[in-house]
This record gives sequence, C-alpha cells and structure tokens, in this order.
Amino acid sequence: MTRIKNDLLLKVLRGEAVERPPVWMMRQAGRYLPDYRKLHDKYSFFERCQTPALATAITLQPVEQIGVDAAIIFSDILVVPKAMGLEVQLIENIGPVLPAPVKSEKDMARICVPDVKDRLHYVFDAIALTKKELNGCVPLIGFAGAPWTILCYMVQGKGSKTFDEARAFCFQQPATAHRLLQMITDTTIAYLKEQIASGADCIQLFDSWGGLLSPEDFNIFSLSYSQKIIQAVKSLAPVILFAKGAWFALKEMSETGADALGVDWCIRPKAARELSGNTITLQGNLDPAKLLGPVAEIKKSVQKMITAFGKDKYIANLGHGILPNVPVENARAFVDTVKEFSH
Amino acid sequence: MTRIKNDLLLKVLRGEAVERPPVWMMRQAGRYLPDYRKLHDKYSFFERCQTPALATAITLQPVEQIGVDAAIIFSDILVVPKAMGLEVQLIENIGPVLPAPVKSEKDMARICVPDVKDRLHYVFDAIALTKKELNGCVPLIGFAGAPWTILCYMVQGKGSKTFDEARAFCFQQPATAHRLLQMITDTTIAYLKEQIASGADCIQLFDSWGGLLSPEDFNIFSLSYSQKIIQAVKSLAPVILFAKGAWFALKEMSETGADALGVDWCIRPKAARELSGNTITLQGNLDPAKLLGPVAEIKKSVQKMITAFGKDKYIANLGHGILPNVPVENARAFVDTVKEFSH
Repeated sequence: MTRIKNDLLLKVLRGEAVERPPVWMMRQAGRYLPDYRKLHDKYSFFERCQTPALATAITLQPVEQIGVDAAIIFSDILVVPKAMGLEVQLIENIGPVLPAPVKSEKDMARICVPDVKDRLHYVFDAIALTKKELNGCVPLIGFAGAPWTILCYMVQGKGSKTFDEARAFCFQQPATAHRLLQMITDTTIAYLKEQIASGADCIQLFDSWGGLLSPEDFNIFSLSYSQKIIQAVKSLAPVILFAKGAWFALKEMSETGADALGVDWCIRPKAARELSGNTITLQGNLDPAKLLGPVAEIKKSVQKMITAFGKDKYIANLGHGILPNVPVENARAFVDTVKEFSH
Repeated sequence: MTRIKNDLLLKVLRGEAVERPPVWMMRQAGRYLPDYRKLHDKYSFFERCQTPALATAITLQPVEQIGVDAAIIFSDILVVPKAMGLEVQLIENIGPVLPAPVKSEKDMARICVPDVKDRLHYVFDAIALTKKELNGCVPLIGFAGAPWTILCYMVQGKGSKTFDEARAFCFQQPATAHRLLQMITDTTIAYLKEQIASGADCIQLFDSWGGLLSPEDFNIFSLSYSQKIIQAVKSLAPVILFAKGAWFALKEMSETGADALGVDWCIRPKAARELSGNTITLQGNLDPAKLLGPVAEIKKSVQKMITAFGKDKYIANLGHGILPNVPVENARAFVDTVKEFSH
C-alpha cells in the first residue's frame, strides 16, 4: 500500500488536529473545467464513466488543475439502479430519466440485488486505475447514493423539486418501499465494500433528497438504511454522510457511526455544530453560487466560514456541487483561500 | 361591513384562544377538485384569474365542498412581475416561463413600479366579488409573493430546483438586485393595500424560495424586504409570512411584525415553536404527500400534528400546496379531523 502524502482529509476523519482544514468540492470533476468539457463533448456520460482511462483522467483533473486535497471517483449515484436492472438515461440539459420506474409491487420483479463485481466492475476498475495514477498524492473518495435518494429516482423516474411521487409511494405502499430500500441497501453495501477493496480511501454517502422528508419519515425511510450501510463499511474506511437539507436530523446522523457529516449552505456553521452535538467532523458549506461572485468576496466568505466552523474537525467544501458556469480562477480562489488559512 | 360568522382564523391571528384550530390548505382551490378541473380545462390560467366571476367561483369551491375555515383568492404570485412589465406565461405541465427575464441593469429599463389599480384591477374586482358572495361565511385571504421569490422568477425566467442564476445575480450585481427588490416591494405594498381595501381580511406573503438562501443572505435579500411589506400593511390586516425552508430564520421572522409564520413539513412542530420564540402563531405543516396515503393514517398524522403544535396560536394547514392527485375524500378527511379535534 502506497502511503498517502497529503493525508489531511484522512486525519480529519480520524478526528486528529491539523494545521489547516482539507478542501475538496462536490462535483469538482465537472463542466466548469475546460479539459472536462472536451471529454464531455466527445463521449456520452456512460462512455466516460465506464471507460476506466476516461474516468481516471476526469477524476485527476481537479487534483492537478485546482489543487484539491482529495480526488473523488468520477461516476454517478444512478449506476446503482442501473445495476439493479432499471434503464437509466442521463440526458444533457434534462437530467436523469428512468423510463420504466418502480410504481408498485409488480415492478419489483424487474429489479434485483445484483452481483456488483459483474455489473459495476467498471467503477472498481476506474478506482484501481485512479489509485495507481494518484500514486499516493491525495486520498481517493468513493461514493454512493443513500437508499432514500436512490428510491426517489427509481420511483419518480426523473429529477423533481419535491419527489412527491416517491414520498407518496412510501406512504401508500410502505411494505414495498421498505423492501426496495433494503434491496438498494444490500446492493450499496456490496458496492462500497468493493470500492474500498479497489482502493477508495474513504466513502461519501449522498442523501441528496433526505431534506424532502419530514423528520419522522426521514428516520423511517432514510436514516435507518444509511445507518446499515455505514455500520457495514465503517471498519473498512471512514464515511461522510451528506443528507442535503436534513438539518433536523444532524443529531441522529451524528449517532449513525458516520465519521463526518456534510451540511448544505442553508445553515449557520454554529447551528450545524450545536445541532450535531459539537463533536463530529463537519463538511461544507459555502453557497455554490458564491463562486460566481467576485474573487474578493469569495475569499472573505471562505475565511468567515472556516473561522465559524473552526480549523479542526472540519472539511472545507461547498454546500452542494460546483456550478458548471463557475470561472476556473474562482474555483481556485476558493481552494487557495482554504490552503492559506491560518488562524 | 358584514360580520364574519366563522372568524376562527382571525381570532387566532389576534392571538385569542379558540375551541379548535382553524384549517385551510395552500392551493385549496386546485386541480384535486373535479369542479375546478372543468374550468381549468375550459379556460387558460389568465382567463380564470382575470375574469372575476371565474376567480370567485374557483375561490368558493373549497369553502363549499371541503369546508375549510378560510377562502384564499384564486390568483398567482406572478401577476406582480407581469404588472411590472415582464411577459409571464403559465404553461400547463411546465410551469411559469418569463421569456425575457432580468439579467442585468439594462433590463431594468423594461420594468416599472406600476399603477396597481390600472394593471391589477382584476384581482381587486375578484376579491370584491368573492367577498360579496362569501357573505361573511369565512374570512378571505389575499396574498402576494415575497420580493426575493418574485426576483427568483424575474431573473431565472422559469422554475428551478435551486434558482442558481437568481442567487448568482444577487452576488454578482448586488446594487441592481437591491433596486429590483425595492421595486417589487413598492409594487407589492400598493398591491396588498388595495387587496385589503377590496375586502381581503388577512394576507399571506409567500416566500417559496426563501429557504434557498444562506441564513446571512436571507436576511439581506429576502427578510428585510418582506419586513417592509409587513410593516406597511399590518395595521390594515393581519399578515402570515411563509418562507418555505427558512427554518433558520424563524426567530428573525417572528420579529418582523408578522402575525403568524408558516412552516413546511421538514421541521418538528416542537422545533418550530422553539426556534420562533414560543409566542407567535404558527401555520402548517403536514407533508402534502400524506394526503395520498390511507385516510386512517391522515387522521392519525393530523391529530398528532395538532397535539404537537397545541390548539392555540395554531392554524392547521399543509406544509406546502395540496397535490393535484389527492382524492377529494382525503382532503376532506384532513379538514374534518381538524374540525373534530378536541384536546
């Protein structure tokens, strides 16, 4: 095993003190990077993601060009429902489309808990190759969607502001919903274990739609399944749980065994610390749209953010994915400001 | 002036004790009602909203058929940007489209603070007619969008999950953003004063996208303008402020002079009480998707919700608009359960 030279992220996930917080950006390998756009225009999403050489090249771009403290493997949370048997299309400017979603018990016959080594080998190959190319420079983050968020797409069949059909599915057919959530959970545990075996140094679990559930339903339909995943993989690699909008469950999430919690931009750092019980590592939370403003303002906001979270038990990040129209120099200003931080 | 027979809502807005909470539903005059769908299929949105007889008929339907304790005038928050000079299309199954949005200072030349009596007379005519037809049966709620939410549409030009362009506009061109917000504020104050003069008994200010701003930016780009509106109209009629997702500003909102605050379904009633300082009247907050579940579950959820909020200083409602596919009998079960509540 290659020793990781810049292991700031892993240190923070172990709760160790650091000279300055590590920094990375959700969706950091993305359209704001001109070199990514070239590959984006040439290959379809699944070509990019299923060709290890392409996925690796894309994963390395922000490490080399922006100087982030971690790589995150280029992929998508929807490779899981695809592996489970549903058709998934990722359509430019429209988003994901699952033409035959799960609407009732009879649709469950169309999905399975797959052999991940067979159906998702391309992700593991990309991780292994990236790990080799990184050569211990920074840690590599693997990831998956939380079961509730995956259910949202499997049931609604497309993106949505509020995923009403997914929520209604849970209330109308709770037994089927729980069976589906358990199948996603089983698939995800196998998937993440294999990501770690292939070289992922830590894991982020994205519950992008966790904040659309009431606190009570979040516990029932989301948290309990995320917790099973965390418990199954935490001895193998540290886990960051990011349930966007689920500020109301920060305490419960801090008790899942997760090593860190992500927070979006719609919460004060002080409130995030208090609500999560003041002990767990937090990650976030600059408003991604701030990177479209002037560099001087970005620097000011980042300094203020680090001061508010504190330099320890903190991973600097955006509160959601970087926007495609962010100027590269602004992304760099964000990262550089964190690196220059001295308290 | 006709005395209002069922004045539960107005009592609660004055902070008076009541035998049971009043109940109404956001978007209660909507597609879940078969009689509404008939008019919806026959007339365009602007025909329905600009023809007082149609707007009145639609407004009365849920009062007569579902038994809610208040009527809310049938209209849309986007009549304001339309009156200010922007083209607004409301397209079935797509949502609002503003083909020529405000992107920079030069676009400001295309908009104005209009004479509301001239540009929005149809709303006032509909309110006057509805008031007459209601004959004092229940109070009539008037409404407008909060300036930040109206800016979202005026800048983004369409609906969005996160209104990134609207947020970026505020960060990139803050002076223009503030000028636009002030113009919306001035228009809205005149608009609401005239709604009240025409017969609206109370006002709801919808800040549907308030929860997309960081707490700091919410204060700068949303709350300060909502507060100006509340201060300008509160001596004329009570005001309910509903900033969806803005749980982090409940305390600040409770200090705007608003008579009540709306809360969405992603917060525990107890937390909403505590965060708002335990004194102001709260409105909400059943997950609208719950109305798609079994009636027995609806009843249970409603009883639990009222018990958690307490019967006083509380207006029973959904946490967002009623969904178009809710069975009428489920909407009625929601309302009936509130009416049958005894502590």
